[in-house]
Amino acid sequence: MKLRAKIIDLKVGKRMVLLHEKDALEIGVLAHDWVKISSAKYKTAAFVDTTQSYLEQGEIGIFKDLHDQLKAKDGGTVSVSLAQPPESIKFIHKQIEGESLTKDEYFSIIRDVVDHKLSEIQIAAFLLAGEFHGSTIDEIEYLTRAMIEAGKVIDFDRSCYDKHSIGGVPGNKVSLLIVPIVAAAGLLIPKTSSRAITSSSGTADTMEVLADVEFDIDELKSIALKASGAIVWGGKLGISPADDLLIRVEHPLNIDPVGQMLASILSKKLSVGADHVVIDIPIGAGAKVSTMEEARKLAESFVELSERFKMHLQCGITYGGQPVGHTVGPALEAREALLALQGKGPASLVEKATALAGILLEMGFKAHPDEGKILAKDILASGKALKKMREIIEIQGGNPKVQPQDISIGHETIALKAPCDGFVTNVDNAAITAIARAAGAPREKGAGIELLWKRGCKIKKNDVLLQIHAERNSKLNEAYTLALKMNPITIEGMLLRKIPKFT
Amino acid sequence: MKLRAKIIDLKVGKRMVLLHEKDALEIGVLAHDWVKISSAKYKTAAFVDTTQSYLEQGEIGIFKDLHDQLKAKDGGTVSVSLAQPPESIKFIHKQIEGESLTKDEYFSIIRDVVDHKLSEIQIAAFLLAGEFHGSTIDEIEYLTRAMIEAGKVIDFDRSCYDKHSIGGVPGNKVSLLIVPIVAAAGLLIPKTSSRAITSSSGTADTMEVLADVEFDIDELKSIALKASGAIVWGGKLGISPADDLLIRVEHPLNIDPVGQMLASILSKKLSVGADHVVIDIPIGAGAKVSTMEEARKLAESFVELSERFKMHLQCGITYGGQPVGHTVGPALEAREALLALQGKGPASLVEKATALAGILLEMGFKAHPDEGKILAKDILASGKALKKMREIIEIQGGNPKVQPQDISIGHETIALKAPCDGFVTNVDNAAITAIARAAGAPREKGAGIELLWKRGCKIKKNDVLLQIHAERNSKLNEAYTLALKMNPITIEGMLLRKIPKFT
Repeated sequence: MKLRAKIIDLKVGKRMVLLHEKDALEIGVLAHDWVKISSAKYKTAAFVDTTQSYLEQGEIGIFKDLHDQLKAKDGGTVSVSLAQPPESIKFIHKQIEGESLTKDEYFSIIRDVVDHKLSEIQIAAFLLAGEFHGSTIDEIEYLTRAMIEAGKVIDFDRSCYDKHSIGGVPGNKVSLLIVPIVAAAGLLIPKTSSRAITSSSGTADTMEVLADVEFDIDELKSIALKASGAIVWGGKLGISPADDLLIRVEHPLNIDPVGQMLASILSKKLSVGADHVVIDIPIGAGAKVSTMEEARKLAESFVELSERFKMHLQCGITYGGQPVGHTVGPALEAREALLALQGKGPASLVEKATALAGILLEMGFKAHPDEGKILAKDILASGKALKKMREIIEIQGGNPKVQPQDISIGHETIALKAPCDGFVTNVDNAAITAIARAAGAPREKGAGIELLWKRGCKIKKNDVLLQIHAERNSKLNEAYTLALKMNPITIEGMLLRKIPKFT
Repeated sequence: MKLRAKIIDLKVGKRMVLLHEKDALEIGVLAHDWVKISSAKYKTAAFVDTTQSYLEQGEIGIFKDLHDQLKAKDGGTVSVSLAQPPESIKFIHKQIEGESLTKDEYFSIIRDVVDHKLSEIQIAAFLLAGEFHGSTIDEIEYLTRAMIEAGKVIDFDRSCYDKHSIGGVPGNKVSLLIVPIVAAAGLLIPKTSSRAITSSSGTADTMEVLADVEFDIDELKSIALKASGAIVWGGKLGISPADDLLIRVEHPLNIDPVGQMLASILSKKLSVGADHVVIDIPIGAGAKVSTMEEARKLAESFVELSERFKMHLQCGITYGGQPVGHTVGPALEAREALLALQGKGPASLVEKATALAGILLEMGFKAHPDEGKILAKDILASGKALKKMREIIEIQGGNPKVQPQDISIGHETIALKAPCDGFVTNVDNAAITAIARAAGAPREKGAGIELLWKRGCKIKKNDVLLQIHAERNSKLNEAYTLALKMNPITIEGMLLRKIPKFT
């Protein structure tokens, strides 16, 4: 069918054309069907969406994404006909029915995800089928390989170390200690990290307080080879682009299928050439994993999968019941990390960072088994880690001489005080994150929370429990209102209940 | 956050705003998240989509659907902030986890579907959870009630008869006989029907050859009460609008969860007040149900569900191994139905139509048990059904005097001939549908197929097996090419194989 092109100057992130409902019926397609389109010079294929109002009959709306391929003139003629949908839809359907998929089938699905040949509905079906039926270790391997293959990869031509946390615990700035400790020991650790999506600061957000984090693959390679380490944002590298597209669909469904999570993490690590990896699995209320049993099972899956790729991988199951260290929010965390590198860090941060760094040092034969943590602490105490961090900051375009007091924290500030004497019995991860976000974190770098007391501490009525920082007064008020409502810190006497109560 | 409105003159069928990625991060939302928006006068909520290119930072794209509610000025200021997502998302998530939902939860989901508060991804999750976990009869009842409640309903204030076929068999024009037979017996049968989506002609498409089929609820009521029967398109009535939105998402996933199918059919029948219903379940290769066992199970579910609504329902399990009658395509089928009403119809069509009509006549106490079909045949033979059909045609704005030869069939025509002597051992439903659609059906009413021979017939080499009709030569060629490729009719000798073969 010949139609008149109407170019719609809007990028929709998919190959899509808009047809008048009557023309769509004539061609024999419904919304989400797949059509072939040709202009005078170019051919392509796209999804159909239909409208009754935006177009006249005889017109076809061409969104900018597709226009870039088709180069039709506004008002010019294009031919449209029914096309066979991408073959990968069959494989998704097979998976819905509970069948296992082959390696080729996973490759076909992931290629079509990256080429925008599958709609979000179809990607949702793919992820949900994984959630419902689970995935065999073979399938997770295929998915991992497919995700690596669909993106860019780096080859450092030497052994490469890395660390990943599955997340869920606020204030987890450990990478800012682990990378310089491991690099100072002479191991290569080009750490790619994420920005916060639902948390109050991702490692990339925190590092960005000290230096640039947006680099392409060649820049990362050059930085890491110079300093033996780097801390950059993974989003600009073009590694495992399928992962971002899958996560975009997982988000509104609020699901995180285990197979998909494993493939996502390992595909990113393998794409940057990491062959020695430590995975941080925090457990606790509000973390992704809440019991030791679950954590152990997940750790076993990580190990089993890593063996398929000849990757040396160990998992560290860590305490995730409250924030790591005493700060939450990019600038506050960057300052705390810098203090820790200067030997003035809180115990929980130093313990966790050196324990995980120690695992990597042992893997790299820099320390004997079970002595990695001691070496990590030595490197930290010697100032070598601080020196290395300053080197990395400089190469990544930051100020290598930065001091903790140079880091600007939001000046709008308010304290939350203890309503009574007692002991801190709970610090609520989810509430801390929500309050820090309300204050402006992670976008407003100076926003966040200082926790004055943590679990088990004895406190007196009117002691400051936490200090909220914001860059703007309106945000501060929002955060404070939320804090009063959410009650992020629980104070109780040692005697929790009297039974029976005498009234 | 205050943003500058940019009105996008495009209806997207959902409540959606477009944000620049950086503003979205600032607000703390991702694509598919839910925001509150207010203009000077109005407030509403919408899904977020994000862009890096179409908008400047500080702008918000407002699609026409939402603009109608918000009435912001182009260039004017609107406030945007993070909103809690609709509660029904929690229920969908519960269902993903395999839990049963309550009546209130189904009502909440369906209300949000109809109010466009759920994205297609979330609707897909809802349908897939049904497909994976199945639904209890309680759940199907709740879903049915929710779907009825979300749309318009008709109350005829008297008993009301209806028929529905679950589909899959080409040439199934039986409703054009059943409605006038049942109406002629004095029972009220206001039949709502669908247009073809993937088939070669829906009942509404076929009836449209003879009369108008697009009416609103009041018009349907008036037509049906005058003639005691009607055959109209259900799409314009506003009954069970949720169903159309669910089907829109099922289509690209190629799924048809049983619970959803039952709720879809019964909600539509109950919305038009039908309390005596016969369901046609064809079995055969290419039909929706392929074995008697499956058909029986489905029939039991229909009966069990109908009892919850005090509906009298019977299922007729019918032969669906090849097309009904000898024609496929709107005009050809309308002509064949008219011939059948004149006593000149093919046996398969007359047998099937009178058997199903007979069930309704028995339900309405017009015939003794097991004598309904005899009565239906009598009504047909007496000419009363023809007279009633002419009455319905006239009230629906058609020509009541129409004769079979008045119906215009596509003049472009070509024959497919038998390649050898033998017997017809198979007529392939899917191939027949595909060829008729390639010829232009259902949009080009004159397009379709005449089948000269059916299963079991003895034929000679070069006998015409089928005649393809089209309105345009280009379509005819497409259909013929497809026919040669798909081989819709299988001819074999009585001796099918010799074993061992002597070569």
